[in-house]
Amino acid sequence: MITINEHYRKLNKSYLFVDIAKRVREFQDAHPDTEVIKLGIGDVTRPLPPAAVRALHDAADEMARPDTFRGYGPEQGYDFLREAIAEHDFRSRGVNITADDIFVSDGSKCDTGNFQELFAQAQTVAVPDPVYPVYVDTNVMAGRTGAFSDGRYEGLVYMEGTRENGFVPPPPEQDVDLLYLCFPNNPTGATATREQLARYVDYARERGALILFDAAYVAFIRDPDLPQSIYEIPGAETCAVEFRSFSKTAGFTGLRCAFTVVPERVEVRDADGGMHRLRDLWSRRHTTKFNGASFPVQRAAAAVYSPEGQTQIRELNDGYLENARIIREGIASIGLTSFGGVNSPYVWVDAGGHPSWELFDRLLNSAGVVTTPGAGFGPAGEGFIRISAFNDREKVVTAMDRIRSALA
Amino acid sequence: MITINEHYRKLNKSYLFVDIAKRVREFQDAHPDTEVIKLGIGDVTRPLPPAAVRALHDAADEMARPDTFRGYGPEQGYDFLREAIAEHDFRSRGVNITADDIFVSDGSKCDTGNFQELFAQAQTVAVPDPVYPVYVDTNVMAGRTGAFSDGRYEGLVYMEGTRENGFVPPPPEQDVDLLYLCFPNNPTGATATREQLARYVDYARERGALILFDAAYVAFIRDPDLPQSIYEIPGAETCAVEFRSFSKTAGFTGLRCAFTVVPERVEVRDADGGMHRLRDLWSRRHTTKFNGASFPVQRAAAAVYSPEGQTQIRELNDGYLENARIIREGIASIGLTSFGGVNSPYVWVDAGGHPSWELFDRLLNSAGVVTTPGAGFGPAGEGFIRISAFNDREKVVTAMDRIRSALA
Repeated sequence: MITINEHYRKLNKSYLFVDIAKRVREFQDAHPDTEVIKLGIGDVTRPLPPAAVRALHDAADEMARPDTFRGYGPEQGYDFLREAIAEHDFRSRGVNITADDIFVSDGSKCDTGNFQELFAQAQTVAVPDPVYPVYVDTNVMAGRTGAFSDGRYEGLVYMEGTRENGFVPPPPEQDVDLLYLCFPNNPTGATATREQLARYVDYARERGALILFDAAYVAFIRDPDLPQSIYEIPGAETCAVEFRSFSKTAGFTGLRCAFTVVPERVEVRDADGGMHRLRDLWSRRHTTKFNGASFPVQRAAAAVYSPEGQTQIRELNDGYLENARIIREGIASIGLTSFGGVNSPYVWVDAGGHPSWELFDRLLNSAGVVTTPGAGFGPAGEGFIRISAFNDREKVVTAMDRIRSALA
Repeated sequence: MITINEHYRKLNKSYLFVDIAKRVREFQDAHPDTEVIKLGIGDVTRPLPPAAVRALHDAADEMARPDTFRGYGPEQGYDFLREAIAEHDFRSRGVNITADDIFVSDGSKCDTGNFQELFAQAQTVAVPDPVYPVYVDTNVMAGRTGAFSDGRYEGLVYMEGTRENGFVPPPPEQDVDLLYLCFPNNPTGATATREQLARYVDYARERGALILFDAAYVAFIRDPDLPQSIYEIPGAETCAVEFRSFSKTAGFTGLRCAFTVVPERVEVRDADGGMHRLRDLWSRRHTTKFNGASFPVQRAAAAVYSPEGQTQIRELNDGYLENARIIREGIASIGLTSFGGVNSPYVWVDAGGHPSWELFDRLLNSAGVVTTPGAGFGPAGEGFIRISAFNDREKVVTAMDRIRSALA
């Protein structure tokens, strides 16, 4: 008799986005003439960089001719893309990552969700709070937690980001086996300094833990003193995996391309004390359950590393960062405090002692602007909302004008 | 201390393709002037259908303009594609499958590999022998087997395809919870009649089992009496999931697009006897660990359903079927018996009482033709080789000419 994975029953039924959609619908029904402006979800709105578009066209033509057609590609990704990544994202910053350490995929959501499969079920996992839900839900599905109550799963260790710690929580006091980190952070927009990252790396090396470092928003870092990769911290090459994506870097949310870095030197233990190269384990998983990212998409991703591609994505992301500045100033002008939005596309707004949903409703009902209630990302997000800079300039300016006139 | 998933240690280190590559290299070194012809792996070689190429170009242009740019798509796939699939692949054949039952993905390897996650660890799994290794390896990784010995994993139930049963084994005698089936079959090229599929459906319904039906090669069925979908068998809509792919249907191995069908009526039990809709569970998995297939690729897949797209893929696959006919006749002309290769791109050659590797070596060394030893697909594949029809006509003709002159 076929029987389900019991761990799925523990999953909290998240009504966050359903709730948001319902409130937006009600507002729209009551105000049919108001154009609702969405600064809620973190999805890009500006067109693909021209270099990527040209690469898509060229690849489509390659696939149309018998002599240049490509069937299955290497599961780990084409050399032309992995070499470009290793050179531009790592070696050019003095970081010794090779093409062999890089695994191209169709998205960081998949990679951050799948990576935990490599480890024993009885591992203790630490996640940030507030948190990108994929880290949590995939560990629930794998049976690494108990029941859900009061917004948290029994058995997980939560690292709380607060005003006091600048939304960069310290490593846990206790021993954990696996730590998820995300900088620049979703949802708080916080960035971590070299010293702050070094504390996590020291923790992991002392305790034999592994860091899963999500750098999906690295393209928004403009401060030259901030590290872009966890491998800029000495020792991280033995205890950290890094996830990167072209989604936010180059507007690829609809194209689908990302990569995971697993340095050769990261080793993990088996139950008998034997050591295994983590890169080999991920390779086994990747080649067994994945069949390579789409060839035209890999060509488009490689084009992002061309000189014109680099100029184009910088302009693209400067545009979103300028949106973030406009949002921050708009929020300040109505007397609220915000965090993030510098070196990050997310502005994390303190609701001034009110619940997340109260500020959400206020912005929706008085200005027709949709945001995301911080409480949806975990209990530590209560009292905040996230405003996303991913929208067109004109809409962001209008949104903040409306908020100012309604609430100032 | 981070510790690995112990089940990964059970995985048999498959040397099949490494072994093949080594022997090919040795042959090439000894015969530098012979062009080796590869009829080994099942990868398409002919260019994409023009309708798909045009759709890729159009989609690239859509992504280049602010008013038509697309970010994240629906995780389950765009309506335009799911509606086209439901209409052309199912409703047009009288099968009641709706767009809501269809989950678009980037490949059937991922889907057939991931689906087992939905079920309890203590499930008994039946797989064919010979078998596509993904069904087996992903269940090993999930801990549903014991150790590997003599080509088999303890705890799995193997359904042997033999000359006697025409490579369509009967359902197991014992109770199992999950059955993997693949028709037209990889590697044997066997197809299943309506009556044969009905035996599996009856088994599943009587024992409360679930069938995972891999129909990746459905586009090669030309016999109007053969079922194309398991849902053509009454009752299957309550006990079967079907996997389909554009890889072999439309030459998409390098583009990446597939889909899984989970009918609304399939229900599975939990440990307390409660019933769950399987479609909801897969939706939860799909939305948590996947972020949608690439938009241009979904456009290309939808174009395959246009009238010109349908004509083009029929011609494409007729070409491979003609290759299969040439291979079958060539094999017969050297006095060997073969199976499959009709309604299927794979020819399964009986080595005439000799081991798989012996015939493999004979074809390589006397004719410079690469095949796949059947023993690599499981113990029941010993004594056979698989010849793939996926290559250009000219190469297939040359390969069979060489085999005839060397071995006849």
